[in-house]
Amino acid sequence: MKEDAIKIVEESIKAVLPDRAVEKAVNSKEFGDFIDGCGRLILISVGKAGWKMADVAARTLGERISEGLVVTKYHHVMGEIPGVQCIEAGHPTPDENSVKGARKALEMVENLSEEDRVLLLISGGGSALFEVPAITLEELQNITGQLLSCGADIGEINTIRKHLSLVKGGRFAEKCAPAKVFACILSDVLGDAVDTIASGPTVPDTSTSEAALKIVQKYNIVLSDEALEALKKETPKALDNSYVTISGSVRELCKAASEAAERLGYETILLTDGMNGEAREIGAFMGNIAETHQKDTRSVAYIAGGESIVHIKGTGKGGRNQELALAATEALASCSDTCLISVGSDGTDGPTDAAGGYVDMNTLGMFKEKNMRVSDYLENNDAHNALKASDGLIFTGPPGTNVNDVTILLIKR
Amino acid sequence: MKEDAIKIVEESIKAVLPDRAVEKAVNSKEFGDFIDGCGRLILISVGKAGWKMADVAARTLGERISEGLVVTKYHHVMGEIPGVQCIEAGHPTPDENSVKGARKALEMVENLSEEDRVLLLISGGGSALFEVPAITLEELQNITGQLLSCGADIGEINTIRKHLSLVKGGRFAEKCAPAKVFACILSDVLGDAVDTIASGPTVPDTSTSEAALKIVQKYNIVLSDEALEALKKETPKALDNSYVTISGSVRELCKAASEAAERLGYETILLTDGMNGEAREIGAFMGNIAETHQKDTRSVAYIAGGESIVHIKGTGKGGRNQELALAATEALASCSDTCLISVGSDGTDGPTDAAGGYVDMNTLGMFKEKNMRVSDYLENNDAHNALKASDGLIFTGPPGTNVNDVTILLIKR
Repeated sequence: MKEDAIKIVEESIKAVLPDRAVEKAVNSKEFGDFIDGCGRLILISVGKAGWKMADVAARTLGERISEGLVVTKYHHVMGEIPGVQCIEAGHPTPDENSVKGARKALEMVENLSEEDRVLLLISGGGSALFEVPAITLEELQNITGQLLSCGADIGEINTIRKHLSLVKGGRFAEKCAPAKVFACILSDVLGDAVDTIASGPTVPDTSTSEAALKIVQKYNIVLSDEALEALKKETPKALDNSYVTISGSVRELCKAASEAAERLGYETILLTDGMNGEAREIGAFMGNIAETHQKDTRSVAYIAGGESIVHIKGTGKGGRNQELALAATEALASCSDTCLISVGSDGTDGPTDAAGGYVDMNTLGMFKEKNMRVSDYLENNDAHNALKASDGLIFTGPPGTNVNDVTILLIKR
Repeated sequence: MKEDAIKIVEESIKAVLPDRAVEKAVNSKEFGDFIDGCGRLILISVGKAGWKMADVAARTLGERISEGLVVTKYHHVMGEIPGVQCIEAGHPTPDENSVKGARKALEMVENLSEEDRVLLLISGGGSALFEVPAITLEELQNITGQLLSCGADIGEINTIRKHLSLVKGGRFAEKCAPAKVFACILSDVLGDAVDTIASGPTVPDTSTSEAALKIVQKYNIVLSDEALEALKKETPKALDNSYVTISGSVRELCKAASEAAERLGYETILLTDGMNGEAREIGAFMGNIAETHQKDTRSVAYIAGGESIVHIKGTGKGGRNQELALAATEALASCSDTCLISVGSDGTDGPTDAAGGYVDMNTLGMFKEKNMRVSDYLENNDAHNALKASDGLIFTGPPGTNVNDVTILLIKR
């Protein structure tokens, strides 16, 4: 069982590594048509996987690339890429280097002709790492702070931030015109809303200047004349030079998990690729599914992707995937040839060195032998130490990608 | 959509009404063989649906019944049943009438011959309504209180209670011997563990006298010499005169929902018939499922049965089914031709007159028009008033059965 589970997880993560995502995109017919007979080709790669994605693109496209730029997190540049400038910047809070990186990108796409092309590679963290505010960085942070303390929702905050940025909300694509831009996305945003990932630098903005001004009024936000002027300027509502493709996301992660499970003889049922609830509740629900289907005669893999949450109350060590798995332990104790595995595709789960957790029918027995109670470990948010005792920690090696998590319940018959 | 949802719910509840459950059981080949050529036939019906079940059995079996007894909750006897004595007793706390009823049952099955038969009909509440303690009722309540305050788990409490009872833990069937007993169950216990439903009066007990004595020691329970003597007596570990069938339960409720959905053209996926998690989390997860499958081309019904829970923090009005449905509202707002319905099969949901709730893509818009926020209503446990405003309350009429709840997510294509 455990071998099956680990194999499925490994194959699903492989499918969404930055390498694979970039290869898939640049080898696509769409991209072939995009660069066919083009003039200059500018490569810009922003996000936590920015260096890796650029490296693969540079090696695949070679001399076709005229000029390149990487903006990634500190300590994420792994070496030199010929012809590509690499800048490290602040994440999760943008800093001067984020602005420097994005300004450099704007410079690179200035004065392009209609024949020129821009390949923009986007990975998680792109929103913070790639920013040129229309105002000072200090005021931007101040306004965000005001919005948060007033209880503005994430949609309202994004509307304001897009209108205060010179690159977000489609404005980067606007700056590339008349050149065309091809954005290839490795997404860590649930639901894959392309205007939300990295704040949609190449996607027409659905929010309006009018809406932004109303939000300012609603919450009595204090802002400078410059900020007010910026909010009055409309973001692009249509872009005819932009093409966006999501090359890796939790959807692909789940799809690859399904395919791997099918190869091992499981029928697969994708429950959701948008789970965002309480980790322990999802684990318990998956346990209920396992109990119900014990008498089924088919081998089935139930798959759920997304990013669960944990409300920390205890002082233990854990992560959302480990907690989700631990919460299924009691239900699985009565299930034969059934197991649950849950892992983060970035190879880390919470502040632990494990990527996730694994439980099966033997797990509860191992706890009982050691006089450990699942409820105690759940209450203390200490899933890591519980699963350590049941040999249920999953390690996938160094973080390679970040497209959320996948949870797999296997029932083998 | 709503019509489909309501129709599926109505048909699924119909399938688990006490009438249908009893008819199914007494018309089965097993029951035919059981009473074939028998001597006396004793009918005993205990539980909240006790009167209704006995009434149907009496009408179906007529003169074949030699003697009958109903033990049900106060105000649950709806009229006279010829040849059947009806006793009303305390629920959820057993009272003198519960003991009187069970003693009467024991009298009726005393001195039966090998040819005689007992038909025992069991519905929810049977554990409280049908009890003859080996000690005084006061001491039984005192011991239960001690166990609860020591943090003993439900398994431990049941072990003690079975050993302190003259009818639970298989002892009623033992008393019927040499006559044979056929138990027909309408179950409100998740997982349908026959030794747990009504504390298993006709099912061999898996817990031992030794285990009971250990629990007493573990928690330093104070008890009389009579209680200690009772705990030392072993419950039956095998019974060759007992046949048990579950004629209605959440499993049948879900199965009937599946069949009704299939008749309306939906492919069906039974997620679980044992859900027991937090109502709002299950609702949110069902919402995630809906979002993920929006682009599917098949009409699918996702079905989950069981009994969710609500941790009340607010001062509003609601029930677990209404809260579960409300929690799916935001996800469903982006889903076309998709709805979620969740109802209790007993026709009541929490302290409200509704049986459950319904939401679809229009629900959120109706809230917004009225300046209502889902999160406020969830926080205040006020799902009833929220769904009242969106015409999302479901009424199924007077309580007819009690086999937990069913939640149905419909995606119509």
